[in-house]
Amino acid sequence: MAAIDGFVAIRDINPQAPVHLLVIPEHHIASFHDIAEFSEGEDKRMLDFIADVAAREGLNDYRVVVNVGAGAGQTVFHLHWHVLGGGLSGRMT
Amino acid sequence: MAAIDGFVAIRDINPQAPVHLLVIPEHHIASFHDIAEFSEGEDKRMLDFIADVAAREGLNDYRVVVNVGAGAGQTVFHLHWHVLGGGLSGRMT
Repeated sequence: MAAIDGFVAIRDINPQAPVHLLVIPEHHIASFHDIAEFSEGEDKRMLDFIADVAAREGLNDYRVVVNVGAGAGQTVFHLHWHVLGGGLSGRMT
Repeated sequence: MAAIDGFVAIRDINPQAPVHLLVIPEHHIASFHDIAEFSEGEDKRMLDFIADVAAREGLNDYRVVVNVGAGAGQTVFHLHWHVLGGGLSGRMT
């Protein structure tokens, strides 16, 4: 649904909120454990893109989530960020 | 409980998981909406610090969460990252 150099955003095929997007870097790391492998520039582009994607989707209130490890619900071992909007409760767990 | 130049980590006083840490930048932005105000270097130090804090806490599986806006459960309008470990369900909402 959106892309910039090195990053794509898609809709989650099993949404857990009315809007459920995934932001995925092309640079492979298995999980957030290895985030230090990303450069300063990659980190900035990634975080700015997450905010841009949410704004373009018209979300004012949203939750940004990274599940790190199988015990936290990570099922695909390539870093991805969840952007969840609409119908959020206060619960993060 | 931990600090590096420009960032601190503390325990949430109202934990929503067995381990519930907050990572807080000194640089004030009200919410993630304004993340583009952070420099490349700030972004990298922040993300790397989040992973370091979780590792020092002994967490292998954890969830990283930013609530963006009151409708997503944000109650303090200074950017902060939740790091949640232990007893996580698959639910992010």
